[in-house]
Amino acid sequence: MLKLAIPKGRLEEKVMTYLKKTGVIFERESSILREGKDIVCFMVRPFDVPTYLVHGVADIGFCGTDVLLEKETSLIQPFFIPTNISRMVLAGPKGRGIPEGEKRIATKFPNVTQRYCESKGWHCRIIPLKGSVELAPIAGLSDLIVDITETGRTLKENNLEILDEIFVIRTHVVVNPVSYRTKREEVVSFLEKLQEVIEHDSNEQSRG
Amino acid sequence: MLKLAIPKGRLEEKVMTYLKKTGVIFERESSILREGKDIVCFMVRPFDVPTYLVHGVADIGFCGTDVLLEKETSLIQPFFIPTNISRMVLAGPKGRGIPEGEKRIATKFPNVTQRYCESKGWHCRIIPLKGSVELAPIAGLSDLIVDITETGRTLKENNLEILDEIFVIRTHVVVNPVSYRTKREEVVSFLEKLQEVIEHDSNEQSRG
Repeated sequence: MLKLAIPKGRLEEKVMTYLKKTGVIFERESSILREGKDIVCFMVRPFDVPTYLVHGVADIGFCGTDVLLEKETSLIQPFFIPTNISRMVLAGPKGRGIPEGEKRIATKFPNVTQRYCESKGWHCRIIPLKGSVELAPIAGLSDLIVDITETGRTLKENNLEILDEIFVIRTHVVVNPVSYRTKREEVVSFLEKLQEVIEHDSNEQSRG
Repeated sequence: MLKLAIPKGRLEEKVMTYLKKTGVIFERESSILREGKDIVCFMVRPFDVPTYLVHGVADIGFCGTDVLLEKETSLIQPFFIPTNISRMVLAGPKGRGIPEGEKRIATKFPNVTQRYCESKGWHCRIIPLKGSVELAPIAGLSDLIVDITETGRTLKENNLEILDEIFVIRTHVVVNPVSYRTKREEVVSFLEKLQEVIEHDSNEQSRG
């Protein structure tokens, strides 16, 4: 029995399509649980995927670089799922640059931001937010933001510009190291099938 | 100029309707910002409302008891907005009761849960999640959950039952104590108008 942690939302449909192409058939489906022969999928928030793996209740998950680096978990990351690439960036009001002295930075990723500031030797006050981070400089809550951007549109709409790129965000297949030892055959066989499906799909698309 | 922090989502429409009834007219509206003469509304995540007040960029906000107790912020709470009352509860799989010894509790409210367990003298391991908390006992991630329930439907659907009520959740009008001193006249006049509108509305409804 393989247990998978699937991130609800943006990646959900893509991941579920891949799973079905590996031959998985679901017999029972609810908003939080999909069950088939020898497989259970837990439908969770993207941020909760590592939690399900680290606590040993899921064997395999799908997870962005942003979540992996924010949560600092050590999971096996055998390969990527091809998705649009986004970036974690430092941004601020257009034309103002990076202010001298203490910087107030609003973000949904306080750990990532803390480490970034330390690497720069900056004195920072981090303001953790749950959402609408682009509002913070407009409201005067922060000087800068650290956030995810794909096209840069939301930043532009709010008169913000990218000041630095912190890292590139991809979607990783992640594996619980304990499952990798104790269920090795089942895990490896699933990962091989998944990788085949992904490669076949990419080839189709590049031919298409 | 009054600055308001409005929680996006479930309460947004109700709060905006009240505001309009106090005579506020918005001249510019975006998904994160609504501006009128002498008023700016920051449209933020419910959890971020206290952050905008504590950092002094908003004077008045609207916020559930759950958020106030989780964030442990000291804000002036002059009155409630009438909304459906929900409750923060301890719940677990039907018929199993509260397990002896160490309890694993999944929740979106780790601070509230920590204080609750301390008040009970329990030895707990808290598993912070971003969402789908009702899945945790099904997946074997936790024994119990601490979560918000209004009708109890989601709990029932997932074969969970309420084991204890931790507190009742209402929607509070909250005021930044600094604004209450430095902008007293403006703040008090707005609160009086808002309270009138709410009372008038409640009377209308009870006359129905």
